[in-house]
Amino acid sequence: MTQTWTIASARKALEEGQVSAVDLVSNAFSAIEREEGEGSRTFIRTFKNNAITQAAASDALRKMNVPQGPLAGIPISIKDLFDITGEVTTAGSRVLADTEPASKDAKVIENLRAAGAIFLGHTNMTEFAYSGLGINPHHGTPLNVWDRRIGRVPGGSSSGAAISVAENMAIAALGSDTGGSIRIPAAFNRLYGFKPSLDRHSMDGIFPLSSSLDTIGAIARSMECCRILDHVMAGLPVPEANIRPLAGMRFAILETIALDGLDVEVAGGFVRALEKMSQAGARLERVKIDAINRFSDIAELGSLAGPEAWHLHRDLISSDEADFDPRVASRIKAAQSISAADYIEMLALQRDMQERTHLATRNYDAVLLPSVAVVPPEIKPLLSSDDAYIETNLKVLRNTAIGNVLGVPAASIPVGGEDTAPVGMMVMGEMGQDALVQDIAQSIDMVLNAK
Amino acid sequence: MTQTWTIASARKALEEGQVSAVDLVSNAFSAIEREEGEGSRTFIRTFKNNAITQAAASDALRKMNVPQGPLAGIPISIKDLFDITGEVTTAGSRVLADTEPASKDAKVIENLRAAGAIFLGHTNMTEFAYSGLGINPHHGTPLNVWDRRIGRVPGGSSSGAAISVAENMAIAALGSDTGGSIRIPAAFNRLYGFKPSLDRHSMDGIFPLSSSLDTIGAIARSMECCRILDHVMAGLPVPEANIRPLAGMRFAILETIALDGLDVEVAGGFVRALEKMSQAGARLERVKIDAINRFSDIAELGSLAGPEAWHLHRDLISSDEADFDPRVASRIKAAQSISAADYIEMLALQRDMQERTHLATRNYDAVLLPSVAVVPPEIKPLLSSDDAYIETNLKVLRNTAIGNVLGVPAASIPVGGEDTAPVGMMVMGEMGQDALVQDIAQSIDMVLNAK
Repeated sequence: MTQTWTIASARKALEEGQVSAVDLVSNAFSAIEREEGEGSRTFIRTFKNNAITQAAASDALRKMNVPQGPLAGIPISIKDLFDITGEVTTAGSRVLADTEPASKDAKVIENLRAAGAIFLGHTNMTEFAYSGLGINPHHGTPLNVWDRRIGRVPGGSSSGAAISVAENMAIAALGSDTGGSIRIPAAFNRLYGFKPSLDRHSMDGIFPLSSSLDTIGAIARSMECCRILDHVMAGLPVPEANIRPLAGMRFAILETIALDGLDVEVAGGFVRALEKMSQAGARLERVKIDAINRFSDIAELGSLAGPEAWHLHRDLISSDEADFDPRVASRIKAAQSISAADYIEMLALQRDMQERTHLATRNYDAVLLPSVAVVPPEIKPLLSSDDAYIETNLKVLRNTAIGNVLGVPAASIPVGGEDTAPVGMMVMGEMGQDALVQDIAQSIDMVLNAK
Repeated sequence: MTQTWTIASARKALEEGQVSAVDLVSNAFSAIEREEGEGSRTFIRTFKNNAITQAAASDALRKMNVPQGPLAGIPISIKDLFDITGEVTTAGSRVLADTEPASKDAKVIENLRAAGAIFLGHTNMTEFAYSGLGINPHHGTPLNVWDRRIGRVPGGSSSGAAISVAENMAIAALGSDTGGSIRIPAAFNRLYGFKPSLDRHSMDGIFPLSSSLDTIGAIARSMECCRILDHVMAGLPVPEANIRPLAGMRFAILETIALDGLDVEVAGGFVRALEKMSQAGARLERVKIDAINRFSDIAELGSLAGPEAWHLHRDLISSDEADFDPRVASRIKAAQSISAADYIEMLALQRDMQERTHLATRNYDAVLLPSVAVVPPEIKPLLSSDDAYIETNLKVLRNTAIGNVLGVPAASIPVGGEDTAPVGMMVMGEMGQDALVQDIAQSIDMVLNAK
C-alpha cells in the first residue's frame, strides 16, 4: 500500500469498486513486510490470515449488496494493549510473552469489529506505555518519518501506531493516551490524534497504566478518521462533522507552562498557524492558569501515573525485573516511596486544576497550545544517557499531560508542511465535549491544511 | 424538656397549639442547663439567643397562619463539624478554637434553615470524628444513657448528638458517619440513626475526615425523624413513608465478619428481633461475601480513613500535636507510612467489595446485621489503657464500617426494650436507594417496636 488513504477515501473507493478490501489488506501487508521498511519494528504481531479472510468475506458481501457497518473492509492497526480474542496482549513487554491469549475482545474492539473494521496486528509501543519517546529495547524502535538519516524517536508510547499510519501499513491506528501517548506520536509524524475525555470509553479489556489518566483513541491521516473511530468505539452513531468558519470563534492560547522553552521550529510552526487562524477571523487571547503551576510545583504533570503504575506492576517488577526495559522499571519503581497522603494531595490538586481551568476557559471555543514543546529528538543520545532520556521524556510529555490531568478531550493536528520539522497544535475542550472538540479541530484544520 | 418528642409529635402539638416553639426551645435549654445533667459535656457551644428569637418569630408567624417549612419551630442539635453562619466550627478539637466563625452555612444547614429548623448548638464529638467510642479529653465524655452507675461510652464520634436526643435536649440531632459515627451512638443509646449513600448530600461547609467514606445524617427517636431530616438536607420533598408488611420480604443476614464474637446481649437481641420478623412473615437467609474478607485481610475496614485523615491533618499535627487528643493524633499519624500503592489497592478492594456485595445482595429487600458487635463499653478501662482503647474502638466500628466501605445507605434501629442493654439492628440497602432503605427500616420497626 504505497497509496495514502483516509477512512472516507477508502470507503468511497470500496463503494465505487475501485479497490477491494482484500486489496487494502494486501497492500497494508506489502508495506508491513517490505524488507527495508519499518514493519518489523512497527508490529509486534500480525493477524494476516484472519485479516485476509475477513476482507474477502467483506468483499463478497459487498458484491451481494448486503449492508455492512461503517468500517467494513477498513484495515486498522491496534496498539498492543487492546485484547483481541485469540491473541496475546503483551503491552510491548517481554515479561507478558507467555500469558494466555485473550478469551474475548476488549469492549471497544468488539464495537469496532461489529462496525466491520479489520485488525491487522498489534503495534509496538513503549513497554507498558510508560514513556512518551517510543523507544523499545525488546522489539526495536520504529523510526520517525522525519529525518531518517539521523534517526529520531517516533514518539510514544503509541510508536507503532503512528508509524503504521505514516508508512501506509494501516489506514488508521488505535492507541492509548495517559500522558500524551496518542498526541505525541501523531504530532511527531505529521498525523492527527485524538485523546477523548477520561471515562468516554469502556476500558474493559485494555491493559491499564493509570486509572486517573488513561484514555484511548486513534492516530490517523485526518481528524475525520479520529472522529469516526472515536464514535464507533463509544458505541455511538457517527454524526456529520459540523465544520464552521473560524470568524467569530474565540480561542485561549494557554500561556502557563505550555509556551516555555519551545524549540524554534515548534514556536515558528505554532505562531504561523495562529496567524492563519487570526486571518481567518478567529479571536485569540492568551490565558494564564495558576492551578496548573500549583500542580506542577509539587509533581511533574501526569505523575499520578507513577504510584498507579507501581500499584499495577509491583508484583511483576518484584518477580521479573530483569525482563523489563530498565528505564521503564526504574521509573515505575521511583514511585514506590510516594505516600498515600501525597497521592491524595495530587488528586486534590488535579480536581482543583480541573475546576479552575474550566472556569478560566469555558467561554472559549477551545484552548490551543503546541502539542509537544520540541521536535522529535534524536534516538542515539537518548540511548547512551539515562539523564538525557529522563529529561527529554519529561519535556516531550509536558504539554500533552496537561490534557490528561484535566481529563478533557484534546486533538493534535499537524501544522506546517512536509518539508519542515513535524509540529502539532493541540486543541483542548471541556470534559465530555468530545464531538465538539472534534468539530472545532476539523474547522481549524480546514484553515490550516486545506489542500 | 422532660417530654420526649419526635418531629411528627412536635409538629402536631405545635399545629394544635398545645406547645409553642419557644416552649420547645426553652425546655431543651432547661435540659441542657440542668446542673446534674450531661449538658455541659453534650454541647460544646449553644446558640440560645438565636434559637429563642427564631422560635418566637416562628410562633408569631404561626399565629398569623403564615405558611412555614416542614421543620418550623423544631429545635435540633448540630454536630460540631457543620458550618453555621457566625459560629466557629471546631470538630471537637482544641486546636481549632481560634479559627474564624463561618461566613456562611454549610449547604445542608442552609436547607434545614430554609425548612424552619432551629439550631440549639454544636454538639460534642470525638476530636475530628476519628473514633467510634465518643471519648473526648477536651470537652468531657457525655455518659451513655445505660448503666450510668458504671459509666459507659456514649458511642462516637457523634457522642453529643446521641445524648442530646436521649436526654431530651433536642428533638433530633445532626451527625456525620465515616465508619459508624451516627449508627454506633444511635445503637448505644436506644435511638434511630441513618447514614445515607456516599454522595447523597453536599459536603460543602462540613469539616471532612475521609472523602471516600464521609456521610451525614440524623440521630433521633424515630426512623421517620431521620427520613424527614435526610430529605430536607438533600433539598428533596419529604414523601409519605411507604410502610409495608414484612410478609413476602426477603432479607440477607450478613454472616461474613458481622456475626463474629458478638456480646451475648447483642446476639440475643439480634436473634429475638429476627424471630419477630420471621413470625411476621419475613424470609431470612444467611449470606457470605468473601470480598469483605479480602478487604479486611489487608486493612481494617474503614482504614481508607487513615491516609485521608493524615493528608487532611498532617500540617496541623506537625505544628500543634500537643493540643490534639493524643489518641487521635497517634492513630492518624500511624497512617503516614501507608504508601500510595497500598492506598490505591484499598480503593480497588473497595470497588471490588462494592460490586460483589451488590451482586450477592441486590435481590434482597435489605441486608441485616447487628449495628455494633458489643454493648457500650465501660469508660474507665479505656482511659487507662491505649491497647484496650484501640482494640475496643476497632471492634465497635467493625460492623458499621462495612456500610461506609460499601457506600450504601444504612439505618440502625433499636431492638429490645428499655430494661436491657442497648442493641441496634442495621438495615443496609443498595447505593442510591436511600428512601427505600428508610421505608424498609420503618416497616421492620413497626414489627419490632410498635407500641
